Amino acid sequence: MIRTHEAGTLRAADAGTTVTLAGWVARRRDHGGVIFVDLRDASGTTQVVFRGAEATEDQEHGRGADAAEGRGLSREEIGGLSEAHALRNEFCVLVTGEVSRRPAGNENPELPTGEIEVTATNLEILSEAAPLPLPVDDNVEASDDIRLKHRYLDLRRSGPARALRLRSKANQIARRVLHDRDFFEIETPTLTRSTPEGARDFLVPVRLQPGSWYALPQSPQLFKQLLMVGGMERYYQIARCYRDEDFRADRQPEFTQLDIEMSFVTQDDVIALGEEIVSNLWRELADHEITTPIPRITWHEAMDRYGSDKPDLRYGLELTELTDYLRGTEFRVFAGAIDAGGYVGAVVMPGGASQSRKELDGWQDWAKARGARGLAYVVLDEQTGEARGPVAKNLSAEHLAGLAEAVQAKPGDAVFFAASPFRREAQELLGAARQEIARRTGVIDPDAWAFCWVVDAPMFERTDDGGWTAVHHPFTSPNAEWIDRFEDAPDQALAYAYDIVCNGNEIGGGSVRIHRADVQRRVFALLGITPDEADEKFGFLLEAFKYGPPPHAGIAFGWDRVTMLLAGADSIREVIAFPKTRGGYDPLTSAPTPITPQQRAEAGVDAKPKTPAIPGTSGIAVPVEHSR
Amino acid sequence: MIRTHEAGTLRAADAGTTVTLAGWVARRRDHGGVIFVDLRDASGTTQVVFRGAEATEDQEHGRGADAAEGRGLSREEIGGLSEAHALRNEFCVLVTGEVSRRPAGNENPELPTGEIEVTATNLEILSEAAPLPLPVDDNVEASDDIRLKHRYLDLRRSGPARALRLRSKANQIARRVLHDRDFFEIETPTLTRSTPEGARDFLVPVRLQPGSWYALPQSPQLFKQLLMVGGMERYYQIARCYRDEDFRADRQPEFTQLDIEMSFVTQDDVIALGEEIVSNLWRELADHEITTPIPRITWHEAMDRYGSDKPDLRYGLELTELTDYLRGTEFRVFAGAIDAGGYVGAVVMPGGASQSRKELDGWQDWAKARGARGLAYVVLDEQTGEARGPVAKNLSAEHLAGLAEAVQAKPGDAVFFAASPFRREAQELLGAARQEIARRTGVIDPDAWAFCWVVDAPMFERTDDGGWTAVHHPFTSPNAEWIDRFEDAPDQALAYAYDIVCNGNEIGGGSVRIHRADVQRRVFALLGITPDEADEKFGFLLEAFKYGPPPHAGIAFGWDRVTMLLAGADSIREVIAFPKTRGGYDPLTSAPTPITPQQRAEAGVDAKPKTPAIPGTSGIAVPVEHSR
Repeated sequence: MIRTHEAGTLRAADAGTTVTLAGWVARRRDHGGVIFVDLRDASGTTQVVFRGAEATEDQEHGRGADAAEGRGLSREEIGGLSEAHALRNEFCVLVTGEVSRRPAGNENPELPTGEIEVTATNLEILSEAAPLPLPVDDNVEASDDIRLKHRYLDLRRSGPARALRLRSKANQIARRVLHDRDFFEIETPTLTRSTPEGARDFLVPVRLQPGSWYALPQSPQLFKQLLMVGGMERYYQIARCYRDEDFRADRQPEFTQLDIEMSFVTQDDVIALGEEIVSNLWRELADHEITTPIPRITWHEAMDRYGSDKPDLRYGLELTELTDYLRGTEFRVFAGAIDAGGYVGAVVMPGGASQSRKELDGWQDWAKARGARGLAYVVLDEQTGEARGPVAKNLSAEHLAGLAEAVQAKPGDAVFFAASPFRREAQELLGAARQEIARRTGVIDPDAWAFCWVVDAPMFERTDDGGWTAVHHPFTSPNAEWIDRFEDAPDQALAYAYDIVCNGNEIGGGSVRIHRADVQRRVFALLGITPDEADEKFGFLLEAFKYGPPPHAGIAFGWDRVTMLLAGADSIREVIAFPKTRGGYDPLTSAPTPITPQQRAEAGVDAKPKTPAIPGTSGIAVPVEHSR
Repeated sequence: MIRTHEAGTLRAADAGTTVTLAGWVARRRDHGGVIFVDLRDASGTTQVVFRGAEATEDQEHGRGADAAEGRGLSREEIGGLSEAHALRNEFCVLVTGEVSRRPAGNENPELPTGEIEVTATNLEILSEAAPLPLPVDDNVEASDDIRLKHRYLDLRRSGPARALRLRSKANQIARRVLHDRDFFEIETPTLTRSTPEGARDFLVPVRLQPGSWYALPQSPQLFKQLLMVGGMERYYQIARCYRDEDFRADRQPEFTQLDIEMSFVTQDDVIALGEEIVSNLWRELADHEITTPIPRITWHEAMDRYGSDKPDLRYGLELTELTDYLRGTEFRVFAGAIDAGGYVGAVVMPGGASQSRKELDGWQDWAKARGARGLAYVVLDEQTGEARGPVAKNLSAEHLAGLAEAVQAKPGDAVFFAASPFRREAQELLGAARQEIARRTGVIDPDAWAFCWVVDAPMFERTDDGGWTAVHHPFTSPNAEWIDRFEDAPDQALAYAYDIVCNGNEIGGGSVRIHRADVQRRVFALLGITPDEADEKFGFLLEAFKYGPPPHAGIAFGWDRVTMLLAGADSIREVIAFPKTRGGYDPLTSAPTPITPQQRAEAGVDAKPKTPAIPGTSGIAVPVEHSR
């Protein structure tokens, strides 16, 4: 090491010690004959003082001079005051000096090193810094583009650096929990077979087999199941996964999951392990003790009460179903939904009656932006409790009279309605309204952590073309009640699937897997995959299931999201060293780029494959563990 | 868990305990009224005994019957003898029974569970197994194709499973060493920018930017350097890397390295850390205490003495240079090399004089297979020490008389020669001969471990077209002696580069990096990269170096090779869960495959890029840490 100490570790007890520090100039204050420099390294900062020759006379004739001769430096360089004048922010420097207590009254109690300073006897500039495109200052706001283009400067700021270090610690904690339970870390391939359904694969041309392509894996799902067939029993991996999808919100083309699979277990075992992992993470990194067992809520209950399969339980604001209450209404919108066997429900906005007409109109725009036709509402007069608003005049006096009680609203509240022949559609609109209400009314405790498991998810849901698709993925096992008869009522069949939710974020999900070839084939058949297609695409899995496959189950945590929450960040980009922007662009390296004709020719991109491509089919969900 | 105990953990102290085990039928012996099954799970095997009704009468009327009722089973199923008749190898089963000591004389001292057996009271077949394409038997040889196609059966064999578990432990040990030293694990991107030089990149078309491509990284080299510029100081990652090269020997298109980078350090610091890592690995996984410091040998000394930059130090058989000794010879082959300023040298095969003519001819074929014209030799008569053989008649009496002493050969030995105007070429032929001699003469102790560091590697070597290429990679720093003047004698300039070698395998390599933009530009210039090209391809690195880059250095271990050596395996395939065969083919999933026209269209493979591709240049080595 070219340094003897780390800057942030010096304390009063080090006074009198000669130290060599290496780091960056965080701040320089030039007082003429004295220059103060805040020297920063990964451990923190310490104040370094450069004094003129008169101030360092003792040192020149004592230890300082000896040390300087040892380094072959001239006397003029001792103390480094002249070079210190040249220092600018983010110069990288090597400083030797003596630790001393700061003069009384000059201590900085807010800094761990605030009791001391280092009086420099030598300064070496390791590298200079040009004027900075991005100040290394936690208090400066900068656009994501600038931050990512100069990520190496961004990471010198304490917040971004802390986020990456936290992520490293999260890895360590999760691995400790898993190794303590005899899990083995096993790497699975990332140059794999394409499965042209569901989410798009990223593809890689194979030069040695021109016309053939690898796919980057959307998850290690099938490989981890094969490891279970291989008797490995307890597998995990912090796995890089890839999904080529349109960049909505906070997504990256490559992402990371903590991927786990176990044999001879039930759903409860996986849930217990998942709770061990999150408990340890939150205890050590967020100073929060999670109460276990974490509450479980069924998928249907989550939809009914919160309008979401990843409900935020930091607040109430539960949905109320009004389908029965409003049966017989003449209001066409509600009646239509009810008559079609659908759903009408409501969510209450406490104090919402005080919103201006503009605010209430804003809700219509909000709903339209989500693809809904609008958001019906009534407001309850703050004094009388009387229902007013566009919907009020369409409802009968009787329905209006009992409404407040039916939805548990008080005078001064607003009541938002949703109605649809499709229960889930209406519930999800109300669920989104519920979140928006929570945000606008400020009921969310920013320090709260609310976890739940969402269990008993449906196996299947209808596709637009009338077929079925897997809600989780096609390798998820129907539960004991449905395994022998899910074809009888695919819309009602339940799976052994479980998602873990934190503050409304799905942070992990998993399932008991199908381990019987006959069940797997029946699920494929329901999903519209013919036996030939199944053999073509998943034949290796069905083949493996011929040879004594064990019952197995697993889970995957969306690691970017988990660590984002632990870091208190509002984007997964904050916990990724070199994230990409929308469209998959990397502002730092300017990837992706065109390729040369030679690269294209060599890669065999345009070669004719030897065998024809299998035409794609529809109706099967993406074979990945969870939705990030 | 559906089981109460793991099969391999049962001991005499468990006698009397009722246990439920889950696992595979490793062996079944049917003795009519009694069936013995070796039940195997990940922990080991235990003997399960199924007895007929008369044998289990007590249990039927006692606890066994209660247990059966609890599971809702009929009396007939108790003991499971009838189902046990149906068991075949690799059926996956759940067995409940009582642990008892084996009858005296029936113990198996070779099995950890050999003192006990489990008398079954219930059997449930979890899944059946078809006739096996690959017997789950450590003693059965099978072709790699069959093993990999049915890798899930291969992994049930103890050897392959042990190799993967060892690799998991190696990860854990390396991480412990690194975390103890405050290293942070940071993930770097795998969808990156293509650098169309050196080894080929795997390419990924980008749908959202049609005509543009990502490259899969050959190593995290540039990103880890950017992390150092970002002040992260201590980085590591067990990183997946990709290289699209022709499949020679034991290579995979994707491979893994333990990747490390540090700031404010010298070569010695990285070497010390590397020694900590390998010491801990070999101590814990190979029961071998590595003597530290590990010897260092310069690159030139390694070439001179062993004809290899990764010398196997388990044996001697050193090379002797004869350039001076043979100066003036009339033998054209040697004289030509000497006159061209080249090299003549020899390696001795002890006892090699007893080889048959056919064996000696075989050496010529061996040399030709390596691309050499042949391998000159003399044999020294076992009795007289007289030199014979084709070369002998071309050498003068004086040269022959002193030869044995010059090369330290004894009567009965053979002496192999190599001569070339290119010193390295001749030395490498002798180095390869040295290895082959060691194999053929059986001097290699299979239990020996010999480590060394190869240091002071040259910065550059000539390319075929007369330019220069980087021996390590273009980001490697010249050493202090050469940093300001490597252009004066590029062939002599030395780098701060270090490779760690184990038994002739390069298991890791690294270097101090260039951290000054001016030095980096000078190296690029020497490598024939124009400033414009440098800016186009590595502009982001040069830009980063403007802002106070710290001195930094690092290393990467070829993790497949490290764990292969620790596992005592002879191929890296043994320590990879799902390896590919030559040509990058996966016999299990049949990847790669053709893609559909829809996939092709969507991926934008045939779109015209918006900006023209940068034409490739030559002369720059691949920016990866080491050569695996």
